[in-house]
Amino acid sequence: MNQEFFDQDILGMETRYRASFINSLGGFKSVVLIGTRSTQGQENVAIFSSLFHIGANPALCGIIVRPDVSPRHTLQNILDTRSYTINHLHKGIYKQAHQTSARYAEGESEFEKTGLTPLYKHGIYAPFVGESRVQFACEFQQKIDLEINGTTLLIGKISYVHVPQASIAQDGFIDLETAESLTCSGLDSYHTTQKIARLAYAKPDKAD
Amino acid sequence: MNQEFFDQDILGMETRYRASFINSLGGFKSVVLIGTRSTQGQENVAIFSSLFHIGANPALCGIIVRPDVSPRHTLQNILDTRSYTINHLHKGIYKQAHQTSARYAEGESEFEKTGLTPLYKHGIYAPFVGESRVQFACEFQQKIDLEINGTTLLIGKISYVHVPQASIAQDGFIDLETAESLTCSGLDSYHTTQKIARLAYAKPDKAD
Repeated sequence: MNQEFFDQDILGMETRYRASFINSLGGFKSVVLIGTRSTQGQENVAIFSSLFHIGANPALCGIIVRPDVSPRHTLQNILDTRSYTINHLHKGIYKQAHQTSARYAEGESEFEKTGLTPLYKHGIYAPFVGESRVQFACEFQQKIDLEINGTTLLIGKISYVHVPQASIAQDGFIDLETAESLTCSGLDSYHTTQKIARLAYAKPDKAD
Repeated sequence: MNQEFFDQDILGMETRYRASFINSLGGFKSVVLIGTRSTQGQENVAIFSSLFHIGANPALCGIIVRPDVSPRHTLQNILDTRSYTINHLHKGIYKQAHQTSARYAEGESEFEKTGLTPLYKHGIYAPFVGESRVQFACEFQQKIDLEINGTTLLIGKISYVHVPQASIAQDGFIDLETAESLTCSGLDSYHTTQKIARLAYAKPDKAD
């Protein structure tokens, strides 16, 4: 049995129901911790599930930032300092990672509150998450305001990468399962993965 | 042992190596089939791994379209007709889904070539993928050219949803594992998932 929803059904949903429904509809998502630091040195770390790939050359990724929730510190810090880090989750830290979404008071560090460890290296201004196995740094490139719903797209250039050596395949593929990276769905569901297969580059003349 | 890569290392990578590396770095991704139809009635279906959530009210999602690969038909059809469908993968169709990325000749339908079934319903112009268990329709809203690398962001409003009834939780969450939706990483790696937990809404005064 399947259920169908039309425009009016979606519009008529209770707000939290709709948020959960639409957030899970798109499929499994990347889930990462974004580390930033204010110009005054206040550290911030926040969970995001809107990271997406924009291009490999130059190496660019995007995130969507909502204006009305706690990651606004993330946005301000990125605009002020141009520096942020992106850190994968694994089973050992997903509860702390989720907890970073709580609305802590101004001046409180999610690192301190959740027990995650800020890590500085190579002169990069923003802190990494020490517990993460896959870490990379971004330099802010562009901000695009999406007037359609008041959110903001931030584009960053990947300027530093830290990955377990054993996770890198000969062709450059990073085997995220060996790093035990997680995926999420909806607003609050965390998942491990199991590889089915890597498929060859598709050509018109063959079936699979 | 970990391996580190700096700006110059990334710039110096062989093109395909870098594409594979950067595409997998961001974490697990949503992977979907996008169905469109030209104004002349020519059907098109293409695999995308750049779908991301923009907002729930209105219900909006984004995709990144590259100018230089076969999904350009997808872009043109969406701009011409404003209609497209998004369809999840499961184990039974992931090989056909991957095969849609082959560069078929102008006038060839990826539906016919891969054996996927175009499905029309409710007067929606674009075809759904009949084999998909989670299907939704979008109405094109906005096109944003990302001059930084020549890609295009398309924003759509979700106007119709079809999901297995058994997958919808009481709070609106769609349990994608019951629909056996897949996730992907990099350019060619497909994965099933296993839920660890759904976590409660995070509040500042509790640890997890």
